[in-house]
Amino acid sequence: MTDSENGRRLHAVDDALLRRREAISDLGDALRLLIEHATATEAPTEELRRAAERIRQAAAPLGERARGRHEPPSADDMRAGVRLYNPVTGAGSAFAPPLEIHQEGEITVGACTLGLAFEGPPSYAHGGVSAMLLDQMLGYAAGASGNPGMTVRLDTGYRRPVPLLTPLRLTAEVVDVDGRRVTVAGSIATAAEPGEILVAATGVFVGLRAEQARRLFGAIAGRGEESRAG
Amino acid sequence: MTDSENGRRLHAVDDALLRRREAISDLGDALRLLIEHATATEAPTEELRRAAERIRQAAAPLGERARGRHEPPSADDMRAGVRLYNPVTGAGSAFAPPLEIHQEGEITVGACTLGLAFEGPPSYAHGGVSAMLLDQMLGYAAGASGNPGMTVRLDTGYRRPVPLLTPLRLTAEVVDVDGRRVTVAGSIATAAEPGEILVAATGVFVGLRAEQARRLFGAIAGRGEESRAG
Repeated sequence: MTDSENGRRLHAVDDALLRRREAISDLGDALRLLIEHATATEAPTEELRRAAERIRQAAAPLGERARGRHEPPSADDMRAGVRLYNPVTGAGSAFAPPLEIHQEGEITVGACTLGLAFEGPPSYAHGGVSAMLLDQMLGYAAGASGNPGMTVRLDTGYRRPVPLLTPLRLTAEVVDVDGRRVTVAGSIATAAEPGEILVAATGVFVGLRAEQARRLFGAIAGRGEESRAG
Repeated sequence: MTDSENGRRLHAVDDALLRRREAISDLGDALRLLIEHATATEAPTEELRRAAERIRQAAAPLGERARGRHEPPSADDMRAGVRLYNPVTGAGSAFAPPLEIHQEGEITVGACTLGLAFEGPPSYAHGGVSAMLLDQMLGYAAGASGNPGMTVRLDTGYRRPVPLLTPLRLTAEVVDVDGRRVTVAGSIATAAEPGEILVAATGVFVGLRAEQARRLFGAIAGRGEESRAG
């Protein structure tokens, strides 16, 4: 094969991967819409039965070729941090709001809006959902500081309930690095009142030693060296 | 209307409600199956596009009659603790594994198996998912002890990662009651090795005063007096 042919082939592979990632995101959007409608619906009971049947029909062809627990999704790239099915941030995840995270200097900033499917106390987010968002924020901040690790502690303080269907602003910042041990603090507020903290958390993340990573992830097909937490 | 006619009418209403709850559970089962297939699928990209289209078609009729943030689902009964869309335990929730909880004397016991959709570190549960399960367990235990409340603290310690596709056993127990403030401890283990704690948590729940409940939940249509946390 000439260099030029090789280049075209690589390019075609990349195009196929990009198209697959777009399709996974689009399927994620459809799933999130379906879940929000299914949670909020007051449609007649027979309509719920019909929807369940249609959903089983849509699910069947997807179940025909499935990966197992130790096979990462073919569209992911763990070394590059592409995790399409992450249940907090993944564009392909039905559970993810999805939380959008970016770095502003030393500060990690997140944004999302929680639908009715995240409800705990009436009209507010489930307390566990706030913990889940903060675990992701704090883990991201640890990684962004060059100290990726697995969560070993997550201490969450709830000051006021987190409203549903309201744009939220989350922040996280590394407060201490002690060898492989990183401490991160973060919070949830509404985007409208970013100074009024609703939930605050402190997390401790520890980078894995090579031998721990082998023990925990040795069974993962084609795994990278990364040890990012979830 | 005679008493007998009235009795038949009430009976018919109950039947309709039970049928609706069954349909909501069945729709929940279909959604959970779809999500697991959509997360694990390695079906061709065109098949993902077709699935997204079918899902949007299934979602549309459900979206036609939707409740708002301050209207509880008509099939729920908050006073009786029936919350079909709770994101951890609800039979109608797409997110809920669902976690099955029951009381064994003083101990609250939970069981679930987490699918690939709950993945954080490769082949293990997202740390936030463990926090979410434990928040629900601890809140349930507080309520079961006669001291329902909202979560004010949740401190979670991660000892070993929680494996996916593995039956889990969770426990929770009230360790202190101080007025409206209840402290509960709980843990996650596998069902196969219940003595080997993977994640442990301590939570503090505080019962709402009447005036707090009015402020937080006053906008909820037809709300009960309960103040169970989520």
